[in-house]
Amino acid sequence: MDFYEVIRTRRSVRSYKPDPIPKDVLRRVLEAARIAPSGSNRQPWRFIIVEDEDLKRRLAEACSNQYFIEEAPVVIVACGYNIRYNRGGYMGDMSMLVDVSIAFTHLILAARVEGLGTCWIGSFDNEEVKKILNIPKDVNVVAITPLGYPKREDAFAEPGPRKALEEITSTDRF
Amino acid sequence: MDFYEVIRTRRSVRSYKPDPIPKDVLRRVLEAARIAPSGSNRQPWRFIIVEDEDLKRRLAEACSNQYFIEEAPVVIVACGYNIRYNRGGYMGDMSMLVDVSIAFTHLILAARVEGLGTCWIGSFDNEEVKKILNIPKDVNVVAITPLGYPKREDAFAEPGPRKALEEITSTDRF
Repeated sequence: MDFYEVIRTRRSVRSYKPDPIPKDVLRRVLEAARIAPSGSNRQPWRFIIVEDEDLKRRLAEACSNQYFIEEAPVVIVACGYNIRYNRGGYMGDMSMLVDVSIAFTHLILAARVEGLGTCWIGSFDNEEVKKILNIPKDVNVVAITPLGYPKREDAFAEPGPRKALEEITSTDRF
Repeated sequence: MDFYEVIRTRRSVRSYKPDPIPKDVLRRVLEAARIAPSGSNRQPWRFIIVEDEDLKRRLAEACSNQYFIEEAPVVIVACGYNIRYNRGGYMGDMSMLVDVSIAFTHLILAARVEGLGTCWIGSFDNEEVKKILNIPKDVNVVAITPLGYPKREDAFAEPGPRKALEEITSTDRF
C-alpha cells in the first residue's frame, strides 16, 4: 500500500471482529517494529503479544476499563528498558519513550497496510500491567494496542480533525 | 512508494547535497507529521523549519558539534508542549515525547518517500537549542533532523543490524 495512503487512512479502531490474525500477517506487523531506528541503535524495546482471554480482560481493566480492547484477538503491549542516553539533557530514563514510540508507530502503520485495526492506548496503569504480564522492574510499559480486523466496514474512512499546517510550523524561529 | 519499502530503506543520512527542497515536497513531508495521531488528539507539537545558514551552524554546534547537520538545506526541529496526561501514570511532563515521536516518525518516513535523507538527532543541548530558536519556557525540543538530498548514490542501500524477532517479542508474558 502507498505510504501516503497508509498514514491518511490510519484510524483508532474501537470495535473488533473475533477473527484470528494469520501468523504471517502478525509477523509482518512485528517485523515493521523490529527494523525501526533507535538512539545508538540500542533497540530498547520488547513487544508482548497477548492472546490469552483472561489476560486480555485484565489488561482492558488496567486500561481504565476500556473493554473494547479485549474484543480484539490480540493485544500488543510495547515495553521499554529504562536506559539513560544523552538525549536533550532532560529526558533521563524517559528517553526510551522516544525509541519505543518510533517502533510502535511502525507497527501501527504496518497494521493498517494489513487491513488490521489498532488503537494506541495511553491511559493504562503501568504498575498493574507490569504485574499482569510479569514485566521486570527496569522495564516500563509505553503503549498498548488491540490488534484485529475492524467490525465496521467504514473503519478506515473518516479522518479526525487536525490543526492547520500554519499553526504547527514556523520558519527559523519558534 | 510502498509502505514496507519505505521502512526497509529508510537510513540515517550523514552527508547532503546543498540542493534546495521544492516547496511542494517540503509541504508533503510536513503534512505527514501534521496528520499524525496523538493522545486525546492534542497535537502538542511544533516543527521549526530552519533554513538560515547561521542558525543551522549554531544548531549543529548545539548537537554535540555534528557539523554534517548544516550541510542540509533545511534542519527540522521538533518541539513538544509540556502537557500532562494520564499516560501510564509515570510519564508526567514527558508524555509529550510519545506524541512528538509519532509525528516525527511520520515526517522521517515521508522524507524517504520523497527521496530526501534524514538523521534523527537525539544528542542535543535542549537549553541551547531553545535559546537559538526563541523557544518558550513550556516547550522542549524532542528531536532534530537535517533534511536534504543525500550526497551518496547508495544512501538508502545498506540496512543496519537489528535484534532477532524472537529476542524482542514474547507471548502472553514478558
